Amino acid sequence: MDYMKKALDCAKKAEKLGEVPIGAVIVKDKKIIATGYNIREKSQNAIDHAEIIAINRACKKLKSWRLDNCEIYVTLKPCPMCAGAILNARIKNCYYGVENQNDKDALIEKIMNDSKLFNHKTKLIYLPNEQCKTILTQFFKQKR
Amino acid sequence: MDYMKKALDCAKKAEKLGEVPIGAVIVKDKKIIATGYNIREKSQNAIDHAEIIAINRACKKLKSWRLDNCEIYVTLKPCPMCAGAILNARIKNCYYGVENQNDKDALIEKIMNDSKLFNHKTKLIYLPNEQCKTILTQFFKQKR
Repeated sequence: MDYMKKALDCAKKAEKLGEVPIGAVIVKDKKIIATGYNIREKSQNAIDHAEIIAINRACKKLKSWRLDNCEIYVTLKPCPMCAGAILNARIKNCYYGVENQNDKDALIEKIMNDSKLFNHKTKLIYLPNEQCKTILTQFFKQKR
Repeated sequence: MDYMKKALDCAKKAEKLGEVPIGAVIVKDKKIIATGYNIREKSQNAIDHAEIIAINRACKKLKSWRLDNCEIYVTLKPCPMCAGAILNARIKNCYYGVENQNDKDALIEKIMNDSKLFNHKTKLIYLPNEQCKTILTQFFKQKR
C-alpha cells in the first residue's frame, strides 16, 4: 500500500477545513492503525498537529504509550513538537514527503537521531512527494 | 505567588499515581489558567506529559491556540516534544526547576531560541529548585 498517498488523503481533509494541509498515518505490521490531520484552527489548540492526533489515537488503539515497531508517514517534515512526540512514542521510522526549507540546521534530525536525551532513535526518511508539496504550495498561495 | 511551588504540587499528584513526578502550571496576568502533571503510565499515552496537558487545557480555556503573554512553570526542563509545544503555543517564558543532565548539547535551548524554524522564541529560564529535584531523585531511587 502507498502509505504516503494515505497521508496525503488526510492532508486533503485538513485542506477542506481551511487548515494547513498536513496529514499523517501510523502503520504497524503493514496495517494503518491510526490517522490524523492538522485541525489547529478549528480546534484552536496548539497541539492539534496531524502527527499528535495520529499518535494519540494509536496509543489508545494499542493501549500502550510504546508504539513499538510502528512507522509514521507524514506529508511534511515534522516540527520539533511532533518530532519529539514520535520519539517519545518509540516509533521506529518516520517517512516524510516534503522538506522543511527552514530546517537549515537539521534540528529535526538532531532531535530524532543525535540527542543524548534519549536512548531510542527514530530513523528519519525523506520520500519526496510532489503532490504533498503542491497541496501545501497552493494553500499558501491562496492565503496570500 | 510561588508558581514553581504550584508546579511542584502538581508533580506530587503524579507521584501519588506512581508516575514520574513532573508538574506544570501556565500563568497569564499573574493568574494560573491551567495545570498539568505527567500521567503517561496511567493513560498509556506517549503525549501525556505535564506540559502538554497544561497547554491543552490553557488553549481550551482561552479558546485560542495562541497563548500570548503566557508563561509556563515546569518542575523539570522540558523534553523536545514539550519544548516544541511550548513554542507552538507562543508561550513567552518557560521557567524550569531542574536541569536535565542529558541535555549536553543544549538541544532544548536550540529548539526554543535558536531555530530557523520559527519566528517566535520562548525564553528558557532556570530557577533551581531543590524540592523539584528531590522528588525526582527519590522516585527513581525507589524504582531501582
